[in-house]
Amino acid sequence: MINAKMRELGAKRSVIRETFEYGRTRKAEIGEDKVFDFSLGNPSVPAPPEVNAELVRLIECESSVALHGYTSAQGDATVRAAIARYINESYGECVNADCLYMTVGAAGALTATLTALVCEGEEVVIPSPYFPEYKVFVERCGATVVAVPCDRQTMELDIAAIEAAITERCAAVIINSPNNPTGKVYSEESISALCDVLKRKSAQLGKTVYLISDEPYRELVYGDVTVPYLTKYYNNTVVCYSFSKSLSIPGERIGYALVSPRMENFTAVYQAICGAGRALGFVCAPSLLQRLLPACLGKTADVTVYDRNRRLLLTALTEYGYECVSPDGAFYLFVKAPEDDAVHFCEVARGFELLLVPSDDFGCSGYVRISYCVSTEQVERSLPAFKALIELYKD
Amino acid sequence: MINAKMRELGAKRSVIRETFEYGRTRKAEIGEDKVFDFSLGNPSVPAPPEVNAELVRLIECESSVALHGYTSAQGDATVRAAIARYINESYGECVNADCLYMTVGAAGALTATLTALVCEGEEVVIPSPYFPEYKVFVERCGATVVAVPCDRQTMELDIAAIEAAITERCAAVIINSPNNPTGKVYSEESISALCDVLKRKSAQLGKTVYLISDEPYRELVYGDVTVPYLTKYYNNTVVCYSFSKSLSIPGERIGYALVSPRMENFTAVYQAICGAGRALGFVCAPSLLQRLLPACLGKTADVTVYDRNRRLLLTALTEYGYECVSPDGAFYLFVKAPEDDAVHFCEVARGFELLLVPSDDFGCSGYVRISYCVSTEQVERSLPAFKALIELYKD
Repeated sequence: MINAKMRELGAKRSVIRETFEYGRTRKAEIGEDKVFDFSLGNPSVPAPPEVNAELVRLIECESSVALHGYTSAQGDATVRAAIARYINESYGECVNADCLYMTVGAAGALTATLTALVCEGEEVVIPSPYFPEYKVFVERCGATVVAVPCDRQTMELDIAAIEAAITERCAAVIINSPNNPTGKVYSEESISALCDVLKRKSAQLGKTVYLISDEPYRELVYGDVTVPYLTKYYNNTVVCYSFSKSLSIPGERIGYALVSPRMENFTAVYQAICGAGRALGFVCAPSLLQRLLPACLGKTADVTVYDRNRRLLLTALTEYGYECVSPDGAFYLFVKAPEDDAVHFCEVARGFELLLVPSDDFGCSGYVRISYCVSTEQVERSLPAFKALIELYKD
Repeated sequence: MINAKMRELGAKRSVIRETFEYGRTRKAEIGEDKVFDFSLGNPSVPAPPEVNAELVRLIECESSVALHGYTSAQGDATVRAAIARYINESYGECVNADCLYMTVGAAGALTATLTALVCEGEEVVIPSPYFPEYKVFVERCGATVVAVPCDRQTMELDIAAIEAAITERCAAVIINSPNNPTGKVYSEESISALCDVLKRKSAQLGKTVYLISDEPYRELVYGDVTVPYLTKYYNNTVVCYSFSKSLSIPGERIGYALVSPRMENFTAVYQAICGAGRALGFVCAPSLLQRLLPACLGKTADVTVYDRNRRLLLTALTEYGYECVSPDGAFYLFVKAPEDDAVHFCEVARGFELLLVPSDDFGCSGYVRISYCVSTEQVERSLPAFKALIELYKD
């Protein structure tokens, strides 16, 4: 019998994809440079040179059978050891290779972790706005998302509201910092307070409430912002990481789940994640991509382009009268729509060839997301359109 | 809450993996060349030269952002068009790019297809012996495997038994030819009869019974055996294909699901498979590996080594007194254990440093699987051990 829910997921394009596809059509109609597409979070800068150099070296120097063969289901042991060392040196942690499970991107890490730790009928608390696929992943486990709005001025976590939302049905909280869509990096103070709540609630409820940290944007931060490493604040944390954005290789699907070495029932949690990966059909993460990693740890694509775009947009849009959330990281600018209906506002914006994504699917109404992982030239050329657009809403 | 089923799947190594790990330990103890490991189905011949040449060309000539960027969720359109053309030329089909959904290996194709087409409480009929992960994948959908033994002499499908096993709860039948673990290629006569049953049963029951064809070994056939292309016999077929074995790149995780262009409710089925892939966290198949494919369609690793091993083993073991299923394809020899308890027989075989896999986890007792994707030299050196082993059971 065709699964109706799956059909719906396959039939209904996300609003992000829909906007992107509209952009492709529109560009064909009026010309590439006349359309300002800010819809997709697809890195626009090339991978650091180490990526291609190491790929070629591996292909030319390693034995084909070893290089392209199955790794263990957890991932190549040498690769996991190198990543563990890097995490320990970078964040003062003390993880080892056996805390790591290599995955097909952060999405694969999230679905394996949720399948392992969230049972049917349970709830997952997520600060909103949030990346729309979380809802898809949580609901496939037969669980429900409980969205908890962030502070609408600062987009910081609302700790009291999160505490109130954690009931005996709560299996986990998902945190995403730097955040998609707001660009917010939650402060150390917020993280500390959140983790205190998780400890208190777990004790009160007599069950472990897990913290799942989705971190594809960890390295994309601007200025002197630091991103707290969550296992250091709460033992029952699983970090879901992807190299998609840091190395500009989003199509290659390589990441990991890291189980804190101080996790309660560590072995059971780690085994359940491996078992879930197996049951979902992952077998192992792509072997060539796994083997690429030791040479690329700590390397990042050139994020100065994103920072330049960020400052350009933030300064100009604020000057024109937009209310923007100042982004600390990622490559998204979250802007208050000058009318209540963000979907309608995006339609009006299309009249100016500006392709923006309304916030409704992010579990939050009244905003738009601007993905600035585009050329600086596109940003510069788009500014008059942004100016003309907001003028419509004045007086 | 930790999912107990997932924990069990992560904790309990498959008997194949367990045997392989035992072999690693044993080799360290007594020397690499003293242990005859026939446990794993990991290709032992290198990828055809076109694979590495094309990978290097892509890395050196294509733009990094395009090469390593997200493809559409279904997979790169040019790649899908090339595969569709290849299928049409090779099998006289008339599929197009939009029948194909690129996946993270055949396992990813199977989990997406089963999630799309099998609902909780339904049944999936599978001829036994069968690849053990089918059970894991089916049960994760909340469904049950109904195993239907093949003819124990020929390992051909038992059509009457399959017909009897298809009830109103049956969602699909999984076929795997060339078969793991028997090496059997089902004859055209069998396939034709099976498809007639599926048509008749679907009409009788007033529901579509899907045919899922798992085909990672399609190109690994010996002599003049041909493998029928199943969409030509039954419209409601999904082919789950992998390049793992044909190109000797099992770790790279690249394959596809093909929905027959004449599938009833084609759009709904295709959308449900895409939706399931999304919900399982696949996002897209690895982009570099997708882009490799157009240059490698129809190429295969050098399978003459497997054929040589097959003939050596079949001739020698038969001569020693073993009862073997003559394999038409794949790289497995299925042998009747000379005692009822195949697990015990495998323990006895370990005394001769022969590492074999008992058939119990394949849904069938009393046999062992010998994976002959090893060096011919290993096969030759192992023959006296096989001879001595069966002598124990004579008199």
